[in-house]
Amino acid sequence: MIDIVLGGSSAQVLTIKIGRQLKIPTILPEIKKFPDGEKYIRITEDVNGKTVAIIQSFYHQPDEFLIEYFLIADTLKDLGAKKVIGVIPYFAYARQDERFKPGEAISFKIVTKLIEEVGTDEIYTIDTHLHRVEQLSEIFHIPAHNLTAVPLLAQYVKKNFELNNPVVIGPDEEAEQWAKIAAKELEAEYDILEKERLGPSEVRIKTRELDVTGKDVLIVDDIISTGGTMVEAIKMLKEHGAKSVIAACTHPILVRNALTRIYQAGALAVIGTDTVPSSISFISVAPIIAEALRRG
Amino acid sequence: MIDIVLGGSSAQVLTIKIGRQLKIPTILPEIKKFPDGEKYIRITEDVNGKTVAIIQSFYHQPDEFLIEYFLIADTLKDLGAKKVIGVIPYFAYARQDERFKPGEAISFKIVTKLIEEVGTDEIYTIDTHLHRVEQLSEIFHIPAHNLTAVPLLAQYVKKNFELNNPVVIGPDEEAEQWAKIAAKELEAEYDILEKERLGPSEVRIKTRELDVTGKDVLIVDDIISTGGTMVEAIKMLKEHGAKSVIAACTHPILVRNALTRIYQAGALAVIGTDTVPSSISFISVAPIIAEALRRG
Amino acid sequence: MIDIVLGGSSAQVLTIKIGRQLKIPTILPEIKKFPDGEKYIRITEDVNGKTVAIIQSFYHQPDEFLIEYFLIADTLKDLGAKKVIGVIPYFAYARQDERFKPGEAISFKIVTKLIEEVGTDEIYTIDTHLHRVEQLSEIFHIPAHNLTAVPLLAQYVKKNFELNNPVVIGPDEEAEQWAKIAAKELEAEYDILEKERLGPSEVRIKTRELDVTGKDVLIVDDIISTGGTMVEAIKMLKEHGAKSVIAACTHPILVRNALTRIYQAGALAVIGTDTVPSSISFISVAPIIAEALRRG
Amino acid sequence: MIDIVLGGSSAQVLTIKIGRQLKIPTILPEIKKFPDGEKYIRITEDVNGKTVAIIQSFYHQPDEFLIEYFLIADTLKDLGAKKVIGVIPYFAYARQDERFKPGEAISFKIVTKLIEEVGTDEIYTIDTHLHRVEQLSEIFHIPAHNLTAVPLLAQYVKKNFELNNPVVIGPDEEAEQWAKIAAKELEAEYDILEKERLGPSEVRIKTRELDVTGKDVLIVDDIISTGGTMVEAIKMLKEHGAKSVIAACTHPILVRNALTRIYQAGALAVIGTDTVPSSISFISVAPIIAEALRRG
Repeated sequence: MIDIVLGGSSAQVLTIKIGRQLKIPTILPEIKKFPDGEKYIRITEDVNGKTVAIIQSFYHQPDEFLIEYFLIADTLKDLGAKKVIGVIPYFAYARQDERFKPGEAISFKIVTKLIEEVGTDEIYTIDTHLHRVEQLSEIFHIPAHNLTAVPLLAQYVKKNFELNNPVVIGPDEEAEQWAKIAAKELEAEYDILEKERLGPSEVRIKTRELDVTGKDVLIVDDIISTGGTMVEAIKMLKEHGAKSVIAACTHPILVRNALTRIYQAGALAVIGTDTVPSSISFISVAPIIAEALRRG
Repeated sequence: MIDIVLGGSSAQVLTIKIGRQLKIPTILPEIKKFPDGEKYIRITEDVNGKTVAIIQSFYHQPDEFLIEYFLIADTLKDLGAKKVIGVIPYFAYARQDERFKPGEAISFKIVTKLIEEVGTDEIYTIDTHLHRVEQLSEIFHIPAHNLTAVPLLAQYVKKNFELNNPVVIGPDEEAEQWAKIAAKELEAEYDILEKERLGPSEVRIKTRELDVTGKDVLIVDDIISTGGTMVEAIKMLKEHGAKSVIAACTHPILVRNALTRIYQAGALAVIGTDTVPSSISFISVAPIIAEALRRG
Repeated sequence: MIDIVLGGSSAQVLTIKIGRQLKIPTILPEIKKFPDGEKYIRITEDVNGKTVAIIQSFYHQPDEFLIEYFLIADTLKDLGAKKVIGVIPYFAYARQDERFKPGEAISFKIVTKLIEEVGTDEIYTIDTHLHRVEQLSEIFHIPAHNLTAVPLLAQYVKKNFELNNPVVIGPDEEAEQWAKIAAKELEAEYDILEKERLGPSEVRIKTRELDVTGKDVLIVDDIISTGGTMVEAIKMLKEHGAKSVIAACTHPILVRNALTRIYQAGALAVIGTDTVPSSISFISVAPIIAEALRRG
Repeated sequence: MIDIVLGGSSAQVLTIKIGRQLKIPTILPEIKKFPDGEKYIRITEDVNGKTVAIIQSFYHQPDEFLIEYFLIADTLKDLGAKKVIGVIPYFAYARQDERFKPGEAISFKIVTKLIEEVGTDEIYTIDTHLHRVEQLSEIFHIPAHNLTAVPLLAQYVKKNFELNNPVVIGPDEEAEQWAKIAAKELEAEYDILEKERLGPSEVRIKTRELDVTGKDVLIVDDIISTGGTMVEAIKMLKEHGAKSVIAACTHPILVRNALTRIYQAGALAVIGTDTVPSSISFISVAPIIAEALRRG
């Protein structure tokens, strides 16, 4: 079983919440920056013989959080930790799992190799968008699990909004997996948006089957980053007569004015989790991480 | 011999200068950032069978430049490069070579291990401040060389300032090595500053032997970061009658108002190299890197 | 009556929410940055003869948001706007209302003078911490109103947490005004913390009268910035037997690891509003701004 | 005559250099930032009855440096300063001197109005690029002078490079004014680049008259920001047989990889001044500011 949760600087509040739910000790290491940017890290508690979960999310400055992760994991093993579990709520560097053009760094493989090299024994992530693999474990050589926060998104919407016969929409084919989960939680129908070719240079997006007229719609995706996909989807749904649209995602990266543009497009609300702390991180993933670590 | 120099995003102008001096091809890889901060790297030239030197300096955002280094080095090997030489003009993460307090990350060892892990075959740095080891090669398991830019600092001062019977000062005992080199270049005497205990709680710094009265003084150190050491040294030298004081360093990290404070203390000029691009990087280390790579 | 709400780049989502509540047009000007940092601003809708409320909050980069405000307000007047109302949810530069030491800039007066100079006709702020004045209107020469978001904080807590006979605490004397408002909303008792001198160099903080043993406590303050005040208050309340402590503020500035430290001190939850978008901005001040603008 | 030079946080080293050349007192005010970003400013020396020159340059974060300027100037007058002279080596916000599209902020006029409003009595800038006005004084209502640093650029090149029968090139028509000045200093010929239309959609740039074949060329412009103009000019000059090309500017804004691209295009060297501290700020404008303030 897990003995200790330890929070890197990307996820300290989340770590405290997980520790409280698991009723086990929480370590927040001493982390300082020298004038040249070098990180100093010190783990002040005894970890000898313990199973330790490092909670560290790779958003905004993923390289900084990665190096911190390397230093912490390696040091835990050096201090005698029995097992090191990496919990990476938002896993950047999952895009490039192949060399699409000559000369590209296959960063997914290099980063996972280094994560293993520093002594990680097992990995958990949340709603990592896998592209050309089915399972995280096809990339990692250690046990690797991809959890989902989508049920939490659906539950939050159910609790905080009065939805009238809602439907769930995935903004593209790859989002069908999330739409399906949310729909089940809401006991609602779901569909995805797809592109219809109208002419040589004309395309429009539309639902595959569902009629959204007069419906309260929940759009679900793994990530909102520039917001482009959400904006397009919301506009289309409003044009087709949707009564209201709520946009939900696990990872609110929200670069530049993404949030403004989604509201401008007509969203009633935009919600996300604390895998990436943001102004729409209304939902904590602490319960699903705690539950996964408890089950082991 | 070396076939190609390749510049990471910390050192691209420096890389072009080195390439011109060596008259060999320069590669500047395609480097982009995704909205979540993930780096995309692509090496667009053929490196198969080649010996490639990666020029990457670890200042200001060392973690970002480190991850870039890992991605580039690993990819070069993956693309068939015969030999990968890491040239790290400013090497952050050289401080922590031991565990001084329980639980500290020995970051120097972890970072060097990862640098080796990604396929680096040989390492060059410049004026790395080694603490508890004599040679860089005691930490690395690959050939590792610590070059010096101090002769360039002295030459620049000789060319650009009219010094009258100058002396060279190292601001503390650890700087004696640099003071000695600069003094030889200037055919001048050198000394270091040391602390003299005047009473139970009173300390003053002074030169060990040299009288600086009426002298043009060159202070030399490996790095200026907060500027505290330089400020104290300049004040002391001016109090002891130095006619003028020039402050020189290899690595101008210069955090916050370091430069202002050094000028306020009375420096005539403050100079540094381009291992860390800054407003006082008047000197390029390209010649010493080119020379070292040429000799191999 | 008010015709248009216009959002500066600090508060665009909030502006959209206010516009929806007031059912009036929302303008989001075109705002770009040139390579040298200069802002370009263009108001693309007709404002001639209109009463326009500019929503702009002065957090994190207050100088940038101030200059934007100046450019927008002046341009609105130049384009023929009848009346310009400045709505500044978080008003930085309210600290320095006097010259405490010789030579200090009395920045509150200078900033308000410039806000008036660019054509502002009326000002609204939220929970501005006034120090040596009773009313905002003692500083401004135009009508100036200081709204409060504290009732929203209390309502949120009532809705989202099961509190058992709660009490409200202001962490210091200046917070009594906020504690009183929250207590009224919760129909609860309130008190403040004060310092008790135990000996020549020993001080402890304690409630003035209330016994918090076994109570669910809500601490209310106008701002959380470094978190120091909250951390001390929570520790003291837990030591005195409080069953749970929720920390609430209007303005979640939250520098560095403030939030982590407050959770570490034992907070059950930490909540704030969107005057400063943050990871604890669970509550929008849109309703109170909309209501104030509607009343006029 | 001028009594004191005072440096804002954008230009403190420059201010010290000016003060030394003028042999007058230098004030560096106490400048701090509160956690919410608000600036605290305190002028610790007596300025009553004095003529004070504020040195503050508007680069990178011009809004922050503007607000600092407003606070300092207003406070100087409040403290009894007789005359406040604003010296703005790089003056951002000089672009928008008209409303080109409906609704645009005419930021040049708004910013100058506020600079005057806070008590500025006279203004100096360096190589401000004026567009639709001939003189800075057409915009300001106070005496306003636009100095030039171009002679310093030419002198630096003459001293540090062995040029063989050099020519000076302005990269476009607006740069003719700077090319002319540099040419006079170097006793060389000058020309500008212009666009030649080759067909309906084909354009090439070329010199108006001069043949650059075999020549050492100095390109001079007021500013390098993205570097696009310089890159195009250098490529063209190299194609036409220029032996070497040095790129010089007064204001090295140098966004993103501008410098790398200019070197890649074939520049032998790239140089600029300290109006914008940068890695190519080899030349200080202190002498020309000191001289202008001395003349009064």
